[in-house]
Formats: sequence, C-alpha cells, structure tokens
Amino acid sequence: MSEQGKEMNEAQLNVHLLELLDLEAIDDFRDEFLEMHPYDQAKFYMLLIPEQRQKLYQFLSPEEMAEVFENLEIPEENYQELLSEMHPTFAADMLGEMYADDAVDVLNELDKEQVASYLTIMDGESAQEIKDLLHYEEDTAGSIMTTEYVAIRSHQTVRSAMQILRKEAPDAETIYYIFVIDEEKKLVGVVSLRDLIVSDEETMISDIMNERVVSASVADDQEIVAKTMRDYNFLAIPVVDFQKHLLGIITVDDVLDVIDEEASEDYSKLAGVSDVESMNTSSLQSAKKRLPWLVILLFLGMMTASLIGHFEDTLNKVAILAVFIPLIAGMSGNTGTQALAVAVRGLATGDIEREGIWKMIMRELGTGLIVGTSCGILVTGVVYVWQHDFFLGLLVGISIFATLIVATLAGALVPMLMHRLKIDPAVASGPFITTLNDLLSILIYFGLATTFMSYLQK
Amino acid sequence: MSEQGKEMNEAQLNVHLLELLDLEAIDDFRDEFLEMHPYDQAKFYMLLIPEQRQKLYQFLSPEEMAEVFENLEIPEENYQELLSEMHPTFAADMLGEMYADDAVDVLNELDKEQVASYLTIMDGESAQEIKDLLHYEEDTAGSIMTTEYVAIRSHQTVRSAMQILRKEAPDAETIYYIFVIDEEKKLVGVVSLRDLIVSDEETMISDIMNERVVSASVADDQEIVAKTMRDYNFLAIPVVDFQKHLLGIITVDDVLDVIDEEASEDYSKLAGVSDVESMNTSSLQSAKKRLPWLVILLFLGMMTASLIGHFEDTLNKVAILAVFIPLIAGMSGNTGTQALAVAVRGLATGDIEREGIWKMIMRELGTGLIVGTSCGILVTGVVYVWQHDFFLGLLVGISIFATLIVATLAGALVPMLMHRLKIDPAVASGPFITTLNDLLSILIYFGLATTFMSYLQK
Repeated sequence: MSEQGKEMNEAQLNVHLLELLDLEAIDDFRDEFLEMHPYDQAKFYMLLIPEQRQKLYQFLSPEEMAEVFENLEIPEENYQELLSEMHPTFAADMLGEMYADDAVDVLNELDKEQVASYLTIMDGESAQEIKDLLHYEEDTAGSIMTTEYVAIRSHQTVRSAMQILRKEAPDAETIYYIFVIDEEKKLVGVVSLRDLIVSDEETMISDIMNERVVSASVADDQEIVAKTMRDYNFLAIPVVDFQKHLLGIITVDDVLDVIDEEASEDYSKLAGVSDVESMNTSSLQSAKKRLPWLVILLFLGMMTASLIGHFEDTLNKVAILAVFIPLIAGMSGNTGTQALAVAVRGLATGDIEREGIWKMIMRELGTGLIVGTSCGILVTGVVYVWQHDFFLGLLVGISIFATLIVATLAGALVPMLMHRLKIDPAVASGPFITTLNDLLSILIYFGLATTFMSYLQK
Repeated sequence: MSEQGKEMNEAQLNVHLLELLDLEAIDDFRDEFLEMHPYDQAKFYMLLIPEQRQKLYQFLSPEEMAEVFENLEIPEENYQELLSEMHPTFAADMLGEMYADDAVDVLNELDKEQVASYLTIMDGESAQEIKDLLHYEEDTAGSIMTTEYVAIRSHQTVRSAMQILRKEAPDAETIYYIFVIDEEKKLVGVVSLRDLIVSDEETMISDIMNERVVSASVADDQEIVAKTMRDYNFLAIPVVDFQKHLLGIITVDDVLDVIDEEASEDYSKLAGVSDVESMNTSSLQSAKKRLPWLVILLFLGMMTASLIGHFEDTLNKVAILAVFIPLIAGMSGNTGTQALAVAVRGLATGDIEREGIWKMIMRELGTGLIVGTSCGILVTGVVYVWQHDFFLGLLVGISIFATLIVATLAGALVPMLMHRLKIDPAVASGPFITTLNDLLSILIYFGLATTFMSYLQK
C-alpha cells in the first residue's frame, strides 16, 4: 500500500499533526487534518491522550468529528468513555451528523438513559431516523441499514433525477443507485447512476429503470443479505417491509464488515472461544469466557475417565493398553474436526442443501473408510515392529480403523443435526467434537480389547 | 430476499425459460432471459443439460454469454468442460468480451496450449490485455485487478471528463472512480463520479481531484488489498507498479470474494483440512487431502504412546492412572486450541503487532493461570469424591493446573513463532496443537505420578 502526492509518510504526518495540536495552531491543523481520509483521521484520533482529544473537540465541528467516529475501529465498550469526554450537546450533534446506521451502532453500546438524553438534545429529524433504526433486532437487515438513500418517482425525467442527486449527494450514503418508489412509498424500480449519465436528459425514469429489483426484507439475517450482495455484485441493496415499502438501504461497505465479522465468529466457534475476545480483553475476562466451555468439556472428559474405569480389570491385566489411549483418542478427534469443518462450511455456503444430505453422508463415509483403512494398516505395522506383538498391533489397528470411520461420521452428522434443530452448526466446536470422539473411541478400543483379551495375555 | 415487479417466482421462471428453450422460441427466450440479472442467468445456465446448453450457445451472442460466465459459481476444474462444448471461435470471442480479470480466472484453469489457442483466435486488444494479466502471481493484487478502468488528465474539465465517462461506461468495470494520470501514465489523483456531478462543468479536474490517492502495489498480497479497501470503504483501488504507473484497478466485488475465500481458508486450516475441499470433491480426493495431515499426527501420537511406554513401570504399579489420560490430554488440547484461535486472529487483524507480543503472552499466561486453577481445584474435588483417594485427586488436579497453563502458552506461542519465521500462522491447526499438547500433558502427568509414586501406592 502506498500513498502518493504528499511525500510525508503516515508516521511523520501524525507527529506533525500532534505538534500543531499541542501548539494550538488551529488553522494549520485543520488544513492538514481535513485533507486526510476519514479512516486516517480515525487512526490519528486513537493516538491521542485525553487532553489532546479535548483540544480536537474544540478544533473540529460536530460534523467533522462525525466522520472520524464513523471510521473508528475500537472495542465497542469504549464508545461510552469517548462520548462522556465530550460536551453532551457536541456529542449529540455529532451523533446526529453521522450516517444513521453508524450512529445506531454507537448508541447500541450505551445505557438506555444515555441514549434517551442524546436523542432529546439532537435535532428532531436525525433523532427520529435513529429511533426508527434502534428498534431492529441485532444481525438483521434492519439493524445494518441506513435511511440516507436517494429515492425518485418513475414519471420524472433523467434531468430532474440528476438535480435531486446533486442536491442529496452530500448527505446520501450512496448516490450510485437511485431507488424508484410509487405514491405509497412502495419500491417499484432501481436506476444506477451509470444508466442516468448515459441516457438522454429528457428520458423518463420509467423507460430506463429496472423493475426486477432484488431487495432484502427488514427481518432477513445480515449474513443472507451479505451473500446476496456478493452474488449479485451489488453496491447497495434496498430494504423493504412486508408490504414492499422502502425502508432503507444497505451499502457494500457494511456488508464487508458483516462478512468479516461472521467469518471470525465461525472461526472462533470452531476453537471454542467467544468471538468478542480481542487483544484488549483482560485475562480475567478471557478466562470467564473460556471457562464455561472448559467446564462442560471437563465433565465430558470425566465421563471418558469413568468409562475407562469400567475397564479397570482389562487394564490391570494388560497395562500396555494404556499406552495407546492418547493415540486413538487423538486420531479420532483430529478426523472428527476435519469432517466437522467441511460440514459447517458446506452448510454455510448452502452446498449441502443443494447436493442433499445423503450425498454428504455417503461422501464422508467413503472418506472415513479410506482414511481409516490406511491409518489402520499403518498403525498395525508400526505397533507390531515396535512391540513385537502382532495381536496388539492388530487390536490398535482395528480400533483406529473403526474409530476413524465413526469419528468422521460424528463430525459430519453433529452439525447437520444442529442445523435441523435450528441451532447454528458453527456452535459445534472442534473441542466439543474432539471430546465426544474421545468417548466413542475409548468405548471401541476397550470394548475390542476386553472381547479379545485371551489373545493379548501371554 | 425477494424480487419485485414480475410476479413469477424464480423456479417458475426457470421452468418457463426451459420450455422456451426446448421449443426453440428464440425471440421469446431472449426477451425473458436478457431481462434477468446475470447472476440469475448463470444459475439458470447451471440447470441445463449439454443439449440445452448447445441451444443456448446458438441463441446468445458471445457478449451475452460472457455475462453469464462472469457470474458462474462452479468448481474451477469444470470450466474446461464447458468451454470445450463451445465452438472455439465462440469460446474465444466470449472470453474476449469478459472483464479481463474474470477471463484470466477462467484461463488459469486450462492447459497452456488451450490458452494459447484461444488467445490466437481472440481479437488482438483483448488478447493483449489478458496476456498482461496472466503474468501475475496468484493471490497478488496483480492477479485480481482488471484493466478496464477510466483514466483522464488533470488539465481536462469536468465536462470533458463526463464525455469520456459516457463513452467508456459500457466497457469499464466501474465508472464511480475516475483516475487521473500524467503524460507518463503515472497516477496523480482520483475523482469520484460524486465529485464530478456536483461540480460546475467548466471546473478543471486538477481543482477537484484528490491527490492523496491510496493505491495498491501490483505485488501486494490480495488479503492486504482487501483490508485496505475495507478500512477506507473504497469501491475500487488503483494498482500501480514501483514507478507509480497505473496498471489496473481492483473493484469491491472482487474484494468480497477475496475476504470470503481467505476466511474459509483460515477456517479450514484451523481444522486441518485443505480449503479446496467442497461437496463436489469425491471421497478419494478428500481422503488424499486429509491423509498427509493425519499421518503426521499419527506419528506425533506414536511419540506420545512411546512416552507413556517409558512410564510402563508406573502404570503397572498404579493402573488407575490410565483412567485420567484422555481427560488430561483432552483438556490441554481444548485450551490450546482456544489460545491458538485468539492468537491467529490477533495476528490476522494486526492487533498483536499493535499491542506488542509481550502483552499478548502475559495476557495468555494470566488466562492460563485462572483457567488452570479453577479446573485444577474442580478436578481434585471430583476425583476425590469419586475415587476416595485424596492424593490421586491432588495429582490429577495439579496435572490439570500445570498442563492448562503450558497448553495455553503453547497455543499462543506456536502461531507467533510461525509468524516470526514468515510461515502463515493459520497453518498451525487445531489438530496439530492438540497433538503437541497431548505430548506435553502426558509428560507432566506421568512425570508427577512417577515422582510422587509413594503417595499413590496403598
């Protein structure tokens, strides 16, 4: 990545800006600062100590601070602190100047009373827009949409549409799609700015608009909206209620955040960590988040231990059996996690629904058979060479063969079952499947060993 | 998701189109088909059997088929088959009509000779554009950029810029950013269409262009480009060489694909599966992809087994020790995977570099201590109640305490070490860290048991 034009690099520029801020050289500071991209402004803001931030609030208008806030990337719990540093009127004005969807993201982190007090100070129109958006449930299309879109009527001409666009351009979140509504505010079409600029000025919007508008319903899951926008390469998608009234739009930049967020959520779940854990989470908070999972797994592990306890007789007679416990349990955990990840991804992409569950199960069974046979033969050989005991080798080999097949199927079936039960399959984490497969593999291994005990005792 | 205007739903529309295709009602078919969004056209295309596809190639122009191909979502190895069904000239013309970056994605899946033969038949300009792009290494900015952008000069007026835009709109991949170059084709600025339409027609581009252009270098990793575009909310980013010559642009729709791709790659790696595995991969192919990992883990597991073998004396004396092997190994694997996921994500987001490696290690050490102490005390109690043996309970509890701390640190340190060694930390999968932690936990458990043997024998 590089930035052209000015030869000062980012670090030098930040140092220079800090000097200007400390010198209270307001005009020079504003000249330099306002020329930066809002994302870089936000990065600069995060470098400041509280006293410097106070100066910044003096130097910038609420509207200018709004752009900084829209681009902040900080843990959500920190918004409260930053807002409380500002004069309440400044904070309320700033929130009012932000795009409504971004303001809602910030307000969702505050206490109810605080939100109410900011909304009271804020100008009426912004407050109403924000209030409307605050109602929508988290992770729905409604919760990420914004109401700052451009809408026109189908009997207008391209010329008058362009006039509206020019007027609304400073406030609208995107001007590259213009939505066409009827007298009841129902969505009837869409025109891109591309279409507008290549059309004759006297053309009617109804002649060039696309009537087959793909839209999101306000209650749709944000992940589905993201997938649709990705599939259709949309820069924005309209959001409608059940009567097809246009309520807002979702722009591609919000969808980038959604995709990123959902992916890192799935990733964390696979490992059994809550996704809200970041570098700034304290040890105690992290431990609190990880412990519930670990305690559940601990009790599952205790079940495995008590299962082995039932085979104590077998173990007392042939102590060497204990040597292969971690190998067998570990291998079943590993294959299970592999199958799990493929299944969760298949469910997320919709591949499994498309291809059918049976196809998926047969595929995993086949994979388990091949993997189990290969590893089983390999293990039989290695144990025989190492322990000079063919029956022991065969026992461990057959156990590996059987557990890998069972573990592969378990890894594939558990997320499918969860999907059927309308539980997010990503909750079936690696640690859970691993501990479940520990249990199954011990049962198979000691079951076989106890049955064929006579061959093992020499 | 819903589609307005026409009342026919997607399934009905597809059935209707299939009828028109079978009836060879070319005009009616084209009327309906060309009104669909290209993504829906692509979904329809995937429903067809080979004979129906042949008809489609007769009904549509190469240019119309190009839009279908740009929106196909099929396993990459299938492109070869579809192209070979077409007349070579039709296929070459279609590839030439596609956006150059999409055409390159398809051509990358074909044999060298086939690519050469298509490029020979194709019109000269398209062939040259594609040849230029084929050189770039996979996963770099160069490999995902397109050359269909709009460039102007700084001494032009807004009016003349708009004229160029209108002319290039049908071919350019985006017209919402216009790039400003000097006489040597070096990038000197950027203007958005938003800026153009709100400016007076006689304004000089140099007066409204932004000279601080954030650009990507042609060799940059695609993941970094995606992160930059997401941070800055760009719809497109220019790609330059080391002398700042403008080579191409990357649009946000390609970046959506990159983010999705990279996220599912990391997810698969955490589980120890190759990311190219999909529902359409056969069992044999899946097994081939999973086996190498499993065989490595098998030998690591054998090391654990041989480690326990060294403690056979201890085991022969106190067989009950074997009962807790899966519990201790399992718990260390689980905590290790949790720490691993947090570390890999921290490295991916750049959080760790920003906050410092020491902070991260101290944080994980703290978390390990809390988690280890809690689980250790819990286990001591449970084992004491179950086995009525306080020393056994204490041994298992202390082992859990020690292994959880070690496992948490191992989970955090292994990806950091890989990052330092310039290996992608996402390669450190859950199964790997689990198996490594098996080894460490067995060493701690049996080491302690052997040392304090006298307390355990009654």
